Amino acid sequence: MSPFALPSRLLMGPGPSNIHPRVREALSAPVLGHLDPLVLAMLAEIQDRLRAQFGTANPLTLAVSGTGSAGIESCLQGLIEPGDRVVVEVRGFFGARMAEMSVRAGGEVTRVETPWGEPADLDRLRAACHTVQPRIVAAVHAETSTGVGLPLGEVAAIAREVDSELVIDCVTSLGGMPVEVDRQGIAAAASCTQKCLGAPPGLAPVTLSPRAEARLAARRRPVPFYFDLPLIARYWSGDHAYHHTIAVNLIYALREALVLAAEEGAPARHARHGRHGIALAAGLEALGLEILAPVEHRLPMLTAVRVPPQVADEAAVRRHLLTAFNLEIGGGLGELKGKIWRVGLMGETSRMSHVVMLLTALGQVLGVAPEGIGAAIGAAGSHVEAAAPSGEGARTGS
Amino acid sequence: MSPFALPSRLLMGPGPSNIHPRVREALSAPVLGHLDPLVLAMLAEIQDRLRAQFGTANPLTLAVSGTGSAGIESCLQGLIEPGDRVVVEVRGFFGARMAEMSVRAGGEVTRVETPWGEPADLDRLRAACHTVQPRIVAAVHAETSTGVGLPLGEVAAIAREVDSELVIDCVTSLGGMPVEVDRQGIAAAASCTQKCLGAPPGLAPVTLSPRAEARLAARRRPVPFYFDLPLIARYWSGDHAYHHTIAVNLIYALREALVLAAEEGAPARHARHGRHGIALAAGLEALGLEILAPVEHRLPMLTAVRVPPQVADEAAVRRHLLTAFNLEIGGGLGELKGKIWRVGLMGETSRMSHVVMLLTALGQVLGVAPEGIGAAIGAAGSHVEAAAPSGEGARTGS
Repeated sequence: MSPFALPSRLLMGPGPSNIHPRVREALSAPVLGHLDPLVLAMLAEIQDRLRAQFGTANPLTLAVSGTGSAGIESCLQGLIEPGDRVVVEVRGFFGARMAEMSVRAGGEVTRVETPWGEPADLDRLRAACHTVQPRIVAAVHAETSTGVGLPLGEVAAIAREVDSELVIDCVTSLGGMPVEVDRQGIAAAASCTQKCLGAPPGLAPVTLSPRAEARLAARRRPVPFYFDLPLIARYWSGDHAYHHTIAVNLIYALREALVLAAEEGAPARHARHGRHGIALAAGLEALGLEILAPVEHRLPMLTAVRVPPQVADEAAVRRHLLTAFNLEIGGGLGELKGKIWRVGLMGETSRMSHVVMLLTALGQVLGVAPEGIGAAIGAAGSHVEAAAPSGEGARTGS
Repeated sequence: MSPFALPSRLLMGPGPSNIHPRVREALSAPVLGHLDPLVLAMLAEIQDRLRAQFGTANPLTLAVSGTGSAGIESCLQGLIEPGDRVVVEVRGFFGARMAEMSVRAGGEVTRVETPWGEPADLDRLRAACHTVQPRIVAAVHAETSTGVGLPLGEVAAIAREVDSELVIDCVTSLGGMPVEVDRQGIAAAASCTQKCLGAPPGLAPVTLSPRAEARLAARRRPVPFYFDLPLIARYWSGDHAYHHTIAVNLIYALREALVLAAEEGAPARHARHGRHGIALAAGLEALGLEILAPVEHRLPMLTAVRVPPQVADEAAVRRHLLTAFNLEIGGGLGELKGKIWRVGLMGETSRMSHVVMLLTALGQVLGVAPEGIGAAIGAAGSHVEAAAPSGEGARTGS
């Protein structure tokens, strides 16, 4: 199928999310060279805007030319030397991936594991850190595989107690809930562009503290060239020495998405994500579905619901939503495969109209009676009375 | 500056090159999920089209989600285990980079170096391979830093003599001159999208032979997760298990660029690049400039010319071309910085109208008299009489 024949879909999976028409238009601005003065000026602007998103003044703040995984692995490869002790908090697929990446970086990894769907066990994490005395503590802020959040401040305090560098996966949280790198003393944080930042996939914002940056400079063994953050930083904001040919159209789109985020303002944007996440959960529960995460640990932008026992083939439900409603939701990953659905409300997708659409479509596919669907929509709506009345759904593109 | 205010430029540097309007339009097709059946079908199509470009039937043929460097490093990280002996042919910046990447992958690296601008010394390369008996031989097909090509067949024969795996950087050659992976027995080849393939930057086509693929499977030490080609292949064409969220808009653009390349046909496309490269060289020499590469080793898509002695500030010439003519050419890299200009004729940029534009603009900036510029254009034109008369410049977008 040609790209020109592709349908627009409502992307309510774990990302990518829908993008604003301005972001979509920015994507196809003319290709320029990676050393063009106009591009270099845009990179500087993006760095400043990413600092605002991360809540940091870190000089080493930029977007790696790869997806979120490339950003996280750049941080882990840079900060872990062979034999370094690493404690990884694992409560889902992406925590397990951080542990795997840490092993591949040569770390001696201790996993503090919690059953998927449950919140982190901070007491065990603290005990492990005091026992192991790791150089690195790694954890996922918003566990996309389960919809379970992490109290960043408390984990940061644990890392401080044992003088470890804290590396955080903010792939799903950044842009949708507060991330305060400097205030919380996070050594390194990495994210992606296609979730709550509202850009297309392909770039990985990262930020590293000056202390972490000094550690990169003092490494004994070199990292892979493509992950060499000091060299990448030299291209972004030093003497612009060539490192690689940046994906300039994705840069345009990220810039536009960050401008939109700034226009909205972080408090309003986080509140929007929070409001619609609560509305969605209320609506899903009113449909008779069970949310995986305990209520006080739920993420606003990613809700995992258990597949109800009467559904024999959950993938068929997702296919039905895709073909009949042009609506994408996600399935489970790893040990949750076949057991949950994941519904995302990220960036431009986080709109009340989309909550209503999801409840309607999923309710119909599950055979819920019209009055049941109406009740679910009512339950969802009861949480957004404070929302702006000015047709917010109209802003959504793609 | 907003992306919406960016100018169109004629990109005649070492890449990115200009893209066709259809490719530009494909970029902004609606974002779809990385597991959407329509996206998965497009990935399969791209694999087939990349196999045609690489001249291979290799099952492991795909595009890594990063720039050309990520593709090359994926191959080197995968094929080199710590302590493996590697011979790298170095005749410019990108050969030196392959050597650096090989060191970072843990290889014991022997560099066979030739002064930058000169062709590879195949006798010394053969002697080094017979002495070292390396597991890997690595070389750049089209050295973008100097405009010097490599006789692939002869290098492949040397690698075969010592039963080594040959890893080739095809970043600048693929799509603009023949690359015959299967016929030449190349173990791994990596390229980029933004040069002769005519797509925007951000993806890295790679192909690995079944023997090289078996070697990846037999590795003792794991590679970084993001470079794990068997896992990436499993996402592209196995059970589509999630590895990362692919940059779907770049996928659309690459697909459209590959369709355009197929419509043109490889023989016509290679001939077009060859014709315009010869025309450009003739025109530049008629302007009184000296081409760095010996005539029989020149690349059609990248021509390096020496900065003439009367030019004190070569960067000022490039800035002048950019600001007054909206025309980008490249400077020198590494030890050639300040000494050469690099003029690219890649993909959509390889048009006779652009050769004429470059000769006119550069001639004017260098103070060549109008009749001298006219003579240079005439010299260039004398090489393209066989070219299609039907306004080929009109196809160029962006």
